[in-house]
Amino acid sequence: MRILLTNDDGIHAPGIRALRKELMKLGEVIVVAPATEQSATGHSVTLATPLMVTEVYDDDGETFLGWAVEGRPADCMKLALLELLESPPDLVVSGLNAGSNAGINVIYSGTVAAAVEAAFYGQTAIAVSLEYTKDAKLDWLNASKYAREVIVAILANKPAQGSLFNVNIPPLERAPLRGIKVMPQNVSVYREQFQRRVNPRGRMYFWSSPEFHCPDPHPDTDVTALAEGYITVTPLQFDLTHRGRLQELEQWTWPVLSEKSHGS
Amino acid sequence: MRILLTNDDGIHAPGIRALRKELMKLGEVIVVAPATEQSATGHSVTLATPLMVTEVYDDDGETFLGWAVEGRPADCMKLALLELLESPPDLVVSGLNAGSNAGINVIYSGTVAAAVEAAFYGQTAIAVSLEYTKDAKLDWLNASKYAREVIVAILANKPAQGSLFNVNIPPLERAPLRGIKVMPQNVSVYREQFQRRVNPRGRMYFWSSPEFHCPDPHPDTDVTALAEGYITVTPLQFDLTHRGRLQELEQWTWPVLSEKSHGS
Repeated sequence: MRILLTNDDGIHAPGIRALRKELMKLGEVIVVAPATEQSATGHSVTLATPLMVTEVYDDDGETFLGWAVEGRPADCMKLALLELLESPPDLVVSGLNAGSNAGINVIYSGTVAAAVEAAFYGQTAIAVSLEYTKDAKLDWLNASKYAREVIVAILANKPAQGSLFNVNIPPLERAPLRGIKVMPQNVSVYREQFQRRVNPRGRMYFWSSPEFHCPDPHPDTDVTALAEGYITVTPLQFDLTHRGRLQELEQWTWPVLSEKSHGS
Repeated sequence: MRILLTNDDGIHAPGIRALRKELMKLGEVIVVAPATEQSATGHSVTLATPLMVTEVYDDDGETFLGWAVEGRPADCMKLALLELLESPPDLVVSGLNAGSNAGINVIYSGTVAAAVEAAFYGQTAIAVSLEYTKDAKLDWLNASKYAREVIVAILANKPAQGSLFNVNIPPLERAPLRGIKVMPQNVSVYREQFQRRVNPRGRMYFWSSPEFHCPDPHPDTDVTALAEGYITVTPLQFDLTHRGRLQELEQWTWPVLSEKSHGS
């Protein structure tokens, strides 16, 4: 099996390095990942500037790891699938991300965006993220082992080609792992704050505060199950159409617009 | 009515200026938009750097327009709703974007991301984009009038609070406008290319090519209707859960994972 591996924390982040070693137990792993951290860059892509690409080798200086791209996670997937890989991989994995990507964080996440981009191209793709407790040291080694086990389980169930999965692992340092739960994405808003400051030259600016929590998650969602100590697996799609409202809107009254209304 | 207006082309772009003038016919308009162009930044948010904010005035130097934010469209919405506006607006509008945001472009779009972010906060939000023919001059004036008419029609149908809409206007210079169609998002992949180059110091890099088209859109989607000359209206949601596969995954075989499997 050939696995294309990416992330949004950058090609040198501990999460992708630990996960690569675990995935090498499953087959060949080619890394195409951002050269620098790209957290919370969502599904951003690079149109106006060039994408510099560098070959990257393992610590021995000889084992070819893949390519570092000075761009976004979604750029990495485009370049990997259209330019860098000689043939399509069997699987795309994005992670291990530092911090969970559950609830509406799915929308902000570069880790998930890379998997979504791969799914645009018909690839089966799995995003994997590790939640952590503030100030705790992340247990990348064991988290990567769990990630591998979940990936093996997903593949063993023979998902349809192009399937997209979002996996979150709870903080391993906090409490015993309770198992795996298949859960939908929580959609309620997070509570967050900004600090308003004034610079020495009198200009107003804001800092995003690190406090970012979901005060009222739905009980049967990824956010809740993750907080309860479960690994969560969420099947994703990228059709943003609100199907329920689509039918409603078709019944609405719409004006007859034509060039006549404003003339050109 | 108080309308919060944003975009991803930047606060000084012609599209937002033209749309602002039309929306002022409906009520008070407060602009909170990126200081510079943020096209294709998706739902990126700014965590690691400060968000500089500047008050912006109309050409007369006296009429307060709103705030320019040195950040992403989603940052603008967060700051507007949490910090800058004294009370929530009645409506959020994002646009007029230069170029359509139909099909999977919805996922790349900063214009749509701003509307999605507003919807996180329970705001009714409408993203509006104008497609154009290559090398043609965009007819911002008439497009803004059509945008206003569609927005008025949406509000007349009394959408549920927090509803999210994606509106695309066809190129007005090409052919007569054929009317309005309610359509789902097309989800098939776009064809795109990169140019591989080598810089004078021997480093490999890639440029994204401007050719980006959808070779095979589904006939009953936003991409097709827009190409046929219709204004398209798509109700959006931000739950990425694949509901069909969710039930399938719940039936899958999952391993029993516990701390025992790897011990910490």
